[in-house]
Amino acid sequence: MKNNKITPQKEDFPRWYQDVVKEAELAENSEVRGCGIVRPYGYKIWELIKEELNRMITSTGVENVYFPIFVPMENLEAEKDHIEGFAPELAVVTHGGGQELVNKLVVRPTSETAMYKTYARWIQSYKDLPLRLNQWNNVVRWEKRPRAFLRWSEFLWQEGHTVFADREGAIAEMWQMLDIYEKMYEYMALPVFKGRKSEVEKFAGAEITSTVEVMVRDGKAIQGGTSHYLGTNFSEVFDVKYLGEDGEKHFGHQNSWGFSWRSIGAVIMGHGDDNGLRLPPNIAPIQVVTVPIYKDENKAEVITYAEKIFSDIKGWRKKIDLRNNLTPGFKYNHWEARGVPVRLEIGPKEAADGTVTVFRRDINTKETVGEKDLSARLEKLMAEIHDNLYKQAKEFALAHIHRIESVDEIKDQVGFFEASWSEDPASERSLKERFSMVSRVLPADNQDKEPKNKKCFITGKEAKHDWLFAKSY
Amino acid sequence: MKNNKITPQKEDFPRWYQDVVKEAELAENSEVRGCGIVRPYGYKIWELIKEELNRMITSTGVENVYFPIFVPMENLEAEKDHIEGFAPELAVVTHGGGQELVNKLVVRPTSETAMYKTYARWIQSYKDLPLRLNQWNNVVRWEKRPRAFLRWSEFLWQEGHTVFADREGAIAEMWQMLDIYEKMYEYMALPVFKGRKSEVEKFAGAEITSTVEVMVRDGKAIQGGTSHYLGTNFSEVFDVKYLGEDGEKHFGHQNSWGFSWRSIGAVIMGHGDDNGLRLPPNIAPIQVVTVPIYKDENKAEVITYAEKIFSDIKGWRKKIDLRNNLTPGFKYNHWEARGVPVRLEIGPKEAADGTVTVFRRDINTKETVGEKDLSARLEKLMAEIHDNLYKQAKEFALAHIHRIESVDEIKDQVGFFEASWSEDPASERSLKERFSMVSRVLPADNQDKEPKNKKCFITGKEAKHDWLFAKSY
Repeated sequence: MKNNKITPQKEDFPRWYQDVVKEAELAENSEVRGCGIVRPYGYKIWELIKEELNRMITSTGVENVYFPIFVPMENLEAEKDHIEGFAPELAVVTHGGGQELVNKLVVRPTSETAMYKTYARWIQSYKDLPLRLNQWNNVVRWEKRPRAFLRWSEFLWQEGHTVFADREGAIAEMWQMLDIYEKMYEYMALPVFKGRKSEVEKFAGAEITSTVEVMVRDGKAIQGGTSHYLGTNFSEVFDVKYLGEDGEKHFGHQNSWGFSWRSIGAVIMGHGDDNGLRLPPNIAPIQVVTVPIYKDENKAEVITYAEKIFSDIKGWRKKIDLRNNLTPGFKYNHWEARGVPVRLEIGPKEAADGTVTVFRRDINTKETVGEKDLSARLEKLMAEIHDNLYKQAKEFALAHIHRIESVDEIKDQVGFFEASWSEDPASERSLKERFSMVSRVLPADNQDKEPKNKKCFITGKEAKHDWLFAKSY
Repeated sequence: MKNNKITPQKEDFPRWYQDVVKEAELAENSEVRGCGIVRPYGYKIWELIKEELNRMITSTGVENVYFPIFVPMENLEAEKDHIEGFAPELAVVTHGGGQELVNKLVVRPTSETAMYKTYARWIQSYKDLPLRLNQWNNVVRWEKRPRAFLRWSEFLWQEGHTVFADREGAIAEMWQMLDIYEKMYEYMALPVFKGRKSEVEKFAGAEITSTVEVMVRDGKAIQGGTSHYLGTNFSEVFDVKYLGEDGEKHFGHQNSWGFSWRSIGAVIMGHGDDNGLRLPPNIAPIQVVTVPIYKDENKAEVITYAEKIFSDIKGWRKKIDLRNNLTPGFKYNHWEARGVPVRLEIGPKEAADGTVTVFRRDINTKETVGEKDLSARLEKLMAEIHDNLYKQAKEFALAHIHRIESVDEIKDQVGFFEASWSEDPASERSLKERFSMVSRVLPADNQDKEPKNKKCFITGKEAKHDWLFAKSY
């Protein structure tokens, strides 16, 4: 059954996205332009993501902290590239406690410049390194074109900030955290393209930016998380120095890495279909919903059986939909839009036979399962749904990479373009202007390989590597 | 052994507090005046508190959401008492995205006025009620006299915002949430005084404010959490109306309730001693620390045994202190300042005998336990430490309530004053002026009782109830 409150993906993908966010009651816009309200169903997805990602991050020895929301404007101005990158996006506090502030404060757009002066105090000797801290917080970057989860002026995320004695240690951690982000997407049944960003696309103040990019179902890219090697750019500005074993002072090598609730946007766009969300079981607020189907004459019997089945379900986040005056069809649409992985349909036939009709949301099919077998079947089914969602997304992504040798081959194809590139910043800017497309990632696998074509697909000059290009959210 | 980096409590209690916060590496001041930095050890305590409180709150059916950090100034101005109460404490954003804002934004000091216009949209009929939402977030209230955890300009907390069809339902929930706050303090081994606030002390815009008050070790009060019945004050302003079963429109009855990381301040001041923190096991980041004590000649043997004991400890948050070049005495001070409930001291004697010397932080005593009995002993010991900390705090609180019949009896006693009071706002203001003391709470038990004295201890007029008064943080 078609959900007619949701625009079909093929008709208008951005509109489809908006409709799903609304229909699944994930979020809505607030009266503060660019800021969103995340409703219980959407927030629960974020809590499930956060819990797992926090577990993975802290299991590597990183500790959580909390730094203030405000950053003195002068701190932000200290690192030249950083302020240039963030200046157009700042929210500025000019008054506090009824007084005009002598020194203006900025609501953190990210916390490098809020934290590193303090790091300079905490770090004295090589024995204090590595220092590896993380915080879960809210940041503000004024958005011109807000979009739910993907681009709101305020967003929730984690930001890790670490200091190492040497470049090698820092770079190894940069990749380690990127691997964790990849694993986090696998947890959400999404494959990623993992690697390095170009000079134009890298983080303001970073020496290397690494990224995981998700291809979603209209073929565009979502930057799923980034891990930056900052070199000594910030440690030189904020005087983050340590006394080495050699008795000399050295600047620390720093990383920062972040993962936000835009990952929810990637899940919606990466898995959703014309009926709404399809959630991987790991992050589904409700994993199994039970819908009793009855008429007046068999209501008592059906509900009794459905409640027994429901109470027998162990180990899954579950819900039974006992709402009156709503048709089964309405309820099916309701839970399909919300992406609940498994629905149990229980009517008089099931009650009489001691069976359950099991609907799986990933492929929208039904099967009949005996009451006694339900527990084992659910266990297997959840794994199957996860694996199938991952496989579908992976196959889609691999099928939508177009190898091109020149910009003339860029058409309106859905997907990413792979091309041999000179890495020349000017060429990237021209690509953006002509095709609204930028480099997304130099896949880690291509880093040490010769490009397939010796000639850059834009400039005709010498190509360095094979890159992926795409339009993005 | 005395920790000489910590000022004794009797010498200067506020200074003692500062020293403990620093020495236990809980937190420090940031360069943004009034805002603090919470370090890993302090933040872990907050995470442990948050996890348990969130479990308790959501188990009552409350769901978590997220609303924006910014509130339009005009929203705040809509409820007269509310803006009067908060005006002196606001941080105001005047510029965003490089532009001066036409409508100024405020960094939320609390979210009543951020949320309730949206509630008006979400609530249509009595079937939508009760609506019970909560958020974990940061808020900003500009502080003149900042103090770590207790009064920072930015703090982390949860704020619950609920709507009921009727006054009775709302008031029942107001007390239900206050009971949860009491249980949360019991989880942290602190007893509370629970009840209603006076007219002067209630929340800006509330009809009733209820509170849990903690007496700390210098006899002052810390407001540990508040639960407000807002009546229809906000629903009338923000048009939060529902269609009742009677076919008529009615204003919703609203509550808000909040609990912040000032609870960490209450834990520090409620349990700490001259050697530093004493943490109840439930919220101790490290519950058992193992300290090997060795000389060069027996180092290998002692460490092997200590590591075996350490790895045998199951089910507790644990740490082994293998730092070189630090004396056992230094390490003892270090972990005592951090309030670790149990320390295992393992030297050559223990290694030879197959025993462990077990130090408990709450009463600073040692006992010898056989290797085989350690697991069972730890289990019992943690419960004993929790119970004893609670008992000590309770006895202290009960022993420091002074019944008085007139203001002339107010001396420099440590503790709370109990008195029969007219509840006259002017009398409360005079008390504050003369003694820096306010009413803290009308204990719930005294609510329906006659006052012990018919005459108000301040005005001599008719007393209404027996209240508790105190100086506070």
